[in-house]
Amino acid sequence: MAPALLDTNGQQMNGVSPNTDKASTPADVATTVQKLSKYGNPALFTTPDRKIEIRPTEVPTPAATEALIHVRCTGICGSDMHFWHRGSIGPLLFDRPCILGHEPSGVVLAVGSEVTTLRKGDRVAIEPGIPCERCWLCDAGKYNLCEQVKFIGVCPYAGSIRRFITHEAKYCHKLPDGVTFAQGALLEPLSVVLNAVRQSSDSLAIGKPALICGAGPIGLCALAAVKASGAFPIVITDVDEAKLDFARKFVPGIKTYHVQMQDTAIETSENIRKVFGVRSRDVERMIPSPDEYRAPSTVIECTGIEISVNTACYTCRRDGVVMIIGVGRSIMNNLPFMHLSLSQIDVRFTNRYSDTWPAGINALQNKQVMDLDAMVTHTYPLEEAIQAMEACSDPKTPTVKVQIVDNTEVEV
Amino acid sequence: MAPALLDTNGQQMNGVSPNTDKASTPADVATTVQKLSKYGNPALFTTPDRKIEIRPTEVPTPAATEALIHVRCTGICGSDMHFWHRGSIGPLLFDRPCILGHEPSGVVLAVGSEVTTLRKGDRVAIEPGIPCERCWLCDAGKYNLCEQVKFIGVCPYAGSIRRFITHEAKYCHKLPDGVTFAQGALLEPLSVVLNAVRQSSDSLAIGKPALICGAGPIGLCALAAVKASGAFPIVITDVDEAKLDFARKFVPGIKTYHVQMQDTAIETSENIRKVFGVRSRDVERMIPSPDEYRAPSTVIECTGIEISVNTACYTCRRDGVVMIIGVGRSIMNNLPFMHLSLSQIDVRFTNRYSDTWPAGINALQNKQVMDLDAMVTHTYPLEEAIQAMEACSDPKTPTVKVQIVDNTEVEV
Amino acid sequence: MAPALLDTNGQQMNGVSPNTDKASTPADVATTVQKLSKYGNPALFTTPDRKIEIRPTEVPTPAATEALIHVRCTGICGSDMHFWHRGSIGPLLFDRPCILGHEPSGVVLAVGSEVTTLRKGDRVAIEPGIPCERCWLCDAGKYNLCEQVKFIGVCPYAGSIRRFITHEAKYCHKLPDGVTFAQGALLEPLSVVLNAVRQSSDSLAIGKPALICGAGPIGLCALAAVKASGAFPIVITDVDEAKLDFARKFVPGIKTYHVQMQDTAIETSENIRKVFGVRSRDVERMIPSPDEYRAPSTVIECTGIEISVNTACYTCRRDGVVMIIGVGRSIMNNLPFMHLSLSQIDVRFTNRYSDTWPAGINALQNKQVMDLDAMVTHTYPLEEAIQAMEACSDPKTPTVKVQIVDNTEVEV
Amino acid sequence: MAPALLDTNGQQMNGVSPNTDKASTPADVATTVQKLSKYGNPALFTTPDRKIEIRPTEVPTPAATEALIHVRCTGICGSDMHFWHRGSIGPLLFDRPCILGHEPSGVVLAVGSEVTTLRKGDRVAIEPGIPCERCWLCDAGKYNLCEQVKFIGVCPYAGSIRRFITHEAKYCHKLPDGVTFAQGALLEPLSVVLNAVRQSSDSLAIGKPALICGAGPIGLCALAAVKASGAFPIVITDVDEAKLDFARKFVPGIKTYHVQMQDTAIETSENIRKVFGVRSRDVERMIPSPDEYRAPSTVIECTGIEISVNTACYTCRRDGVVMIIGVGRSIMNNLPFMHLSLSQIDVRFTNRYSDTWPAGINALQNKQVMDLDAMVTHTYPLEEAIQAMEACSDPKTPTVKVQIVDNTEVEV
Repeated sequence: MAPALLDTNGQQMNGVSPNTDKASTPADVATTVQKLSKYGNPALFTTPDRKIEIRPTEVPTPAATEALIHVRCTGICGSDMHFWHRGSIGPLLFDRPCILGHEPSGVVLAVGSEVTTLRKGDRVAIEPGIPCERCWLCDAGKYNLCEQVKFIGVCPYAGSIRRFITHEAKYCHKLPDGVTFAQGALLEPLSVVLNAVRQSSDSLAIGKPALICGAGPIGLCALAAVKASGAFPIVITDVDEAKLDFARKFVPGIKTYHVQMQDTAIETSENIRKVFGVRSRDVERMIPSPDEYRAPSTVIECTGIEISVNTACYTCRRDGVVMIIGVGRSIMNNLPFMHLSLSQIDVRFTNRYSDTWPAGINALQNKQVMDLDAMVTHTYPLEEAIQAMEACSDPKTPTVKVQIVDNTEVEV
Repeated sequence: MAPALLDTNGQQMNGVSPNTDKASTPADVATTVQKLSKYGNPALFTTPDRKIEIRPTEVPTPAATEALIHVRCTGICGSDMHFWHRGSIGPLLFDRPCILGHEPSGVVLAVGSEVTTLRKGDRVAIEPGIPCERCWLCDAGKYNLCEQVKFIGVCPYAGSIRRFITHEAKYCHKLPDGVTFAQGALLEPLSVVLNAVRQSSDSLAIGKPALICGAGPIGLCALAAVKASGAFPIVITDVDEAKLDFARKFVPGIKTYHVQMQDTAIETSENIRKVFGVRSRDVERMIPSPDEYRAPSTVIECTGIEISVNTACYTCRRDGVVMIIGVGRSIMNNLPFMHLSLSQIDVRFTNRYSDTWPAGINALQNKQVMDLDAMVTHTYPLEEAIQAMEACSDPKTPTVKVQIVDNTEVEV
Repeated sequence: MAPALLDTNGQQMNGVSPNTDKASTPADVATTVQKLSKYGNPALFTTPDRKIEIRPTEVPTPAATEALIHVRCTGICGSDMHFWHRGSIGPLLFDRPCILGHEPSGVVLAVGSEVTTLRKGDRVAIEPGIPCERCWLCDAGKYNLCEQVKFIGVCPYAGSIRRFITHEAKYCHKLPDGVTFAQGALLEPLSVVLNAVRQSSDSLAIGKPALICGAGPIGLCALAAVKASGAFPIVITDVDEAKLDFARKFVPGIKTYHVQMQDTAIETSENIRKVFGVRSRDVERMIPSPDEYRAPSTVIECTGIEISVNTACYTCRRDGVVMIIGVGRSIMNNLPFMHLSLSQIDVRFTNRYSDTWPAGINALQNKQVMDLDAMVTHTYPLEEAIQAMEACSDPKTPTVKVQIVDNTEVEV
Repeated sequence: MAPALLDTNGQQMNGVSPNTDKASTPADVATTVQKLSKYGNPALFTTPDRKIEIRPTEVPTPAATEALIHVRCTGICGSDMHFWHRGSIGPLLFDRPCILGHEPSGVVLAVGSEVTTLRKGDRVAIEPGIPCERCWLCDAGKYNLCEQVKFIGVCPYAGSIRRFITHEAKYCHKLPDGVTFAQGALLEPLSVVLNAVRQSSDSLAIGKPALICGAGPIGLCALAAVKASGAFPIVITDVDEAKLDFARKFVPGIKTYHVQMQDTAIETSENIRKVFGVRSRDVERMIPSPDEYRAPSTVIECTGIEISVNTACYTCRRDGVVMIIGVGRSIMNNLPFMHLSLSQIDVRFTNRYSDTWPAGINALQNKQVMDLDAMVTHTYPLEEAIQAMEACSDPKTPTVKVQIVDNTEVEV
């Protein structure tokens, strides 16, 4: 049965049904904040000496354009591990204590005086970055590249691994009835992928072969999105057979290739191409296969590992697209430029996302389009946030996506 | 379970596995043709006096680059009805007797001396148009627009509603084991849609709303393809409630709108937009809805009816794409130019297809991507081709896709 | 010699050199406004009874993010004639007295307390529309389609045909030394064209044939922009031979075609194609010319006249783009749909502009890229604004672009 | 004055005016070949032992679809130097004696029996690669990537540094009267650039800043093409100040930057950005400049030197395109992946050209579009082809483009 769009689809970004209720007064809001204080607002901090700890914090008061939200779920991201253990990723530096968490969903408890698009009780997924909306990149529709973005969970902006947060109402996207908080919290990693998929729309298409390199959380989201876009055949690779097992169950009908650590990029690319049904070529002499046509026209690289990037370049068919999502090191070597040139391949890079939550919510609303539920392999209550983080960094715990949930019954 | 790509996917267009058998000699081919004569080669002709009749024909001999094929299935297209009853569509003129049929699949019986990509026994879907491969449009990758195309089933080129045909081997696409002849014969209407979908790739995307106008065979293929591309929500319209019933079963999870003949294009567009969850606007004053964002960014028009085209234009959201597949009359009136201009909408047109069979075969190979089987509501043996045509033109017979099949056991 | 980019290029939109001066205080600004009152602020109003008149107005005080500007030049646009004589264009309704003018340039006299990108004395071109910067269309980089835009000179927003105005500083674009106020005021019509050219970037290219329909001010800007983009050969059409004479002098090396009023769209299209060197085709039977390749791949329609739009459709080559800039009537008839379909032509519409001033300023800075100076055929002082408007509406006065200038020496 | 399109524009690729003369008979052709033998057919060979020598060859006889041509001019390309001195470029291997030359123009002396588009006396520019016209890449409009291309002057296909050659008539493009043989021979390097410019059409635009790295022959063609496309400001770089002097005279109004060998890629990129008027950023911390907007949105890399490629990546603005034309080494290191990712830059590669001669001829026909004449700094008669090659490889001879001409008066 089709979802009841008219009744439950709720608000999309800016395509909003105005709240016709009487707006909250500042006094109402203050009362609400006061009432919430009894629940406490424990928050997971990372500290400059590479520790994580739960500390009590104040219940924040929403500004006029903000909503006050009970965070019901936050996913843990690989970048959270880096922020904890290394204190930085590229230019992002954690030089002071900061609350982690940028994959949240929750329930609106109160809204600022100018908010017309949300009301108390609305269930929302939170887009973590607040762009400036005024710079040339925002004006050009690339707010994902805004240099003044305030991105929660990245120092100095406090993240969502806590009970109560405030956030710009515009970037709180209403969830329809059928979409869970867990799904709402998956919209952030899905958004990374939807942005990359949009950048690949000239190449990724119904019935076209596609390759995903890496079967971690982003790779699995990419797998689901590539499947949702109609690409076929689809192959996903990893060095970890267990992740490939998971992938095969996660999206039936796909193929996998187990990357062997000792193989060269060229050897691995030849093996992956065989899974697509492409016969061998003479890579060194740069002679394409006679059935090059079956090689993937789109390769989505999700590992950020140098040899995987180079394998992606060698595997892509002539006139194809290599979409780089995963970026690890600042500098990469061994790029096969002559091969990329003779093959006229586009190597594209992506950074975060713009305008992906509404489409992501639509997609998750219908399990025939996309079903990410199985990705959530572990959940922890907010009070056990440290254990959640430790599970993620423990190689013996085979997690895919770990989420921190808070089912505290909050009354206001 | 995933299809076994390596073993069964077979040849893709030009990405072929060379046949390592000894090539057929002209003598072999002549012997085969001779043997086949006992089966006869009855063919469905349309005549300049607007009749259809089955006439005996010779078994054709393949040229060096051609294959001789036992046609196992041919779908009947709306254009066949026009060719029969009116003798023309636009510039396509049936001024002499001509065999109809341009949606064929079959089995290879013999190949010409230069054919290396097919062998006897191969099951194939036939792409009906043979472009010149040398003009500027072919060179530019737009062979669908080639002015010298030889398109079978369009006068003067003999079509496939007969037992045996010859066809350029390059345009005979091998079917993997899991794909049936019926599916193979659906690749032609699907290709019309895949070409249009490719032209809409900047607009049609995962989680983006899409509208299909018309629930006939092309509309249903469009519905399946739009679904396969991840668009959501999806609405399809028709003036015939029975067709909408069919559509709802054909692709679960979609919405339908029953167009009322007495309504204006503006009224119908407002009603369709409500199904997407868009509130009313003041169309006459050209003021968009406050939730314009939920209106379809892609509208695929499959009826060719003027009021439907105009409805499509009014329904599309700002910055959207109206993709015109259906074209009926040479000239259309009442286009809402001011609305299109203020909304900055692209109105795109499409003609046939290029490079769509390989992707279509890939898509049909996995029912999770696309399942068109239910479209075939009626089948007739070759001997009853006239009854098949009559069923299509009888409004009391509610057909979707009628196919003519030939299960004669042919031995060579 | 190259312009001295480092010294004079000045600020681009958002890519600004911060003003390191001490910011204006509100008291400073109030003093400036006070001083200016002696100069008066006469403004050209259009009234609901279809009159125009000059009335005195107050000197406005800039808000914190605004600049106060001495308008040195405003171009008169065809739409101003419509607003005067008919009181509306499509949804734009002049139902109360309103100051006209939306093509201004001028000098900054004072800035609000938050303005860091402009300072007193800066010469600027003013982008007349202030988008909301928060809706989904603004977020998507299509602020030209923003439904909440405040567009000066369109009721109820006061225009620039007066001495002093205030405007959002962000939409005041600094002019380098070499660019005149007259050129600055031409950036608005040029922007209309640059937006359309950007939408045609897949078709309009170096050495590709292009056609412009209509040699009025927008047609001439299109001609200059098409020339600047390297298209060749270029043909421009009009019903007025004098306009074609002007066009030939304005952009040497182009061809013209004088449209005959009594000819049909098909006849005119055949004649235009001959100018491109294309031999006749059988249009009625929809058979392309054997040298269709030479026909224009891009047609820019700047008249908004139905027969010209239809001629544009017939003239465009297969796989080409018809870009509609001019829109006159709400509804258009006689669109050749079958022809557009067989030719797979894109019919694109455009509305205003986004992010065009910086590029336009760069282009005008180097006369080898673009030189629009000759377009300004008439100038009137502000006090004679009514005469300027009358000249525009007098068919006996052969104007191209009329500008209203104010050279009053203003001291603050 | 505009060129007389109707009379002189001549044939475009496939958009041909059929030759209505009586076709040549094989006997006619044989007679012509016989008559030509008296002129001899000296040809410049490169040999496997890395020598070049002029050897006598037979006058070739054109096949039915070919033309016999008196080569009037052939440009020498950097790749010819590599073929001579190193015997290979990537997969292209000179393992036997082979005639060099792939930038030819000339006069048709005779045509094969099926040629209808050329006649004796036609002046033509020759597109050196003959694609198969049947593979999936040719079908997709990417014949530049055809794996079966026969490319003259690349072993084993004989090149054009000789007096008489035969070539497929379709790939001989008629030159209008105003276009010289020297210009005709420049169409090949220009085509490399036009292909790359077409791939950059979403980024390279009127008034947008653009950078060209490298001021050799390809860099200069890129400079001319970027200028022709309306980009502004334009900067070109080189390590050789003399080349920059040349560039400044070649295309007035541009800026140059003299790359210092000892500087890092980051240092050079900062300096280049200063020429565009961009203030410093903190590259190491990946913080963009506040006026990032002024940085080039398109960077065309024409050197193939690793540090230049990396400089190109660092110099490009956020959301820009780095177009790689020059490729030297098979493998490149030190790519700034994190920077490319955060900036969401597309790194595009290009290989040869498709459908560029007609547009190139149109462009060269009008010097206001493009004037490459000054590039030809040295010409040598065919008999001195070895001296021509030596001049190219002599660092003390400051050549830009060296052409070998043959003004022998040939009568047939």
